[in-house]
Amino acid sequence: MIRETIVTTLSPAGEPHVAPMGASVVEGGYLLQPFRPSRTLDNLLAAQAGVVNLTDDARIFAGCITGRHRSWPTVPTRHIAGARLEAVLAHEEFVVTRIEEDTVRPRFFCRVVHRESHGPFLGLNRAVAAVIEGSILVSRLHLLDPERVDREMNYLSVVVDKTAGPAEREAWDWLCETVADHRARAAS
Amino acid sequence: MIRETIVTTLSPAGEPHVAPMGASVVEGGYLLQPFRPSRTLDNLLAAQAGVVNLTDDARIFAGCITGRHRSWPTVPTRHIAGARLEAVLAHEEFVVTRIEEDTVRPRFFCRVVHRESHGPFLGLNRAVAAVIEGSILVSRLHLLDPERVDREMNYLSVVVDKTAGPAEREAWDWLCETVADHRARAAS
Repeated sequence: MIRETIVTTLSPAGEPHVAPMGASVVEGGYLLQPFRPSRTLDNLLAAQAGVVNLTDDARIFAGCITGRHRSWPTVPTRHIAGARLEAVLAHEEFVVTRIEEDTVRPRFFCRVVHRESHGPFLGLNRAVAAVIEGSILVSRLHLLDPERVDREMNYLSVVVDKTAGPAEREAWDWLCETVADHRARAAS
Repeated sequence: MIRETIVTTLSPAGEPHVAPMGASVVEGGYLLQPFRPSRTLDNLLAAQAGVVNLTDDARIFAGCITGRHRSWPTVPTRHIAGARLEAVLAHEEFVVTRIEEDTVRPRFFCRVVHRESHGPFLGLNRAVAAVIEGSILVSRLHLLDPERVDREMNYLSVVVDKTAGPAEREAWDWLCETVADHRARAAS
C-alpha cells in the first residue's frame, strides 16, 4: 500500500525541506524512493533520518508540486534531529535502516521510531483526492500527452466543483495555472 | 465542502442503520440530504439525531453501496440516543435542528453536539479515493451509460493496482463484481 505523504528532511546545514512523496507501507515503517537528483535524496543520505507527515491539506501537495507555495512552517522533532510540518494530523519520525542503490530512484527502508497525532481526522473529501491526482499529472506534464492531461483535468474538475472547500479550490487553481503556464511556454 | 462519511441512525425499534453519505459542512455541523425513500430518512425523521462517522476504510463505503457487506459493528453513543461505528477514526453526534422538505432529497440541518477521536490518521491513499469514486459510479449504474462506467472504472483501476492495500483491493473487487452482476442481469 502506498500512502501519499509529505516527507520533511533536514539538510546538513539544518534547513528543512518539504516534499510530497508516496510512501510504501512496509513492516515497521516505510519504503521511500526519492528521485535522483533531489534534495530529499541528498538529505536522507546525509541525515539517515526524516519525517513522514500525514495530512489531508491538499494545498501542501499542490503548493510544493507547482512551486506556488513551498514554505510550509515546520517545528523541530524530538526523537530524531529533524523537522515536521507544524499543521499536520499526525507525523512519524523515522531512521533509515537500509539503502538499495538505483540509478533513478534509490530505495530507502525507514523504521518509524516515534508516532504522534496532532488533530482529529475530519473525513474524506473527493476534492482532496482530485487535487492529489491533479498534482501527479502536473508533476509529469513534460512526459504526458496534452490531450490526456486535459481529459483527466476536466474529469477531476467536476469533482472539485462539486465537493471542494476554499483550501481545495485554491490548490486546484495552482494546478490549473501551472498547466496553463506550461502550455504557454511550450507554445512560445 | 462535502465530506464523504458514514451516517449511522437508529430506527424507532433501536436497530442501527449504516449508510454512506455526503455531508455538506455548514456552520456548527452538517447538512444531510438523504434520498426519499430511505431508511436513513425515516430514522432521521423519527429520532431527530444521528452520527457522522469519519473513516478512511474503503470497505465500509463499497460494502454498503454494493450490499456485499452491510453489517459493520456499532456501539452505543453517549450524548444522543444513537450508535456509531466501532472502527472509526472519529465520530460526531448530532441533533437535527431544521428540516427543509423536498420531494427527492429533504434537507436536514444537523448541529454537532459531541466529537470524539478514536485513532490516528494514517495518511491519504489514492486507492481509497478510487474506491469512493467507484462506489458513486456503482450507486448510479441504472442511470449511467455502460461505456462511461467502463471508461471510468478502467481509469480508477490503474490507481487501485498501483497503490491499494488488501482492504482497498477487497472493496474494489466488490465494486467490479457488482458491475458484472448488473451487466449480466441487463443482458438476460
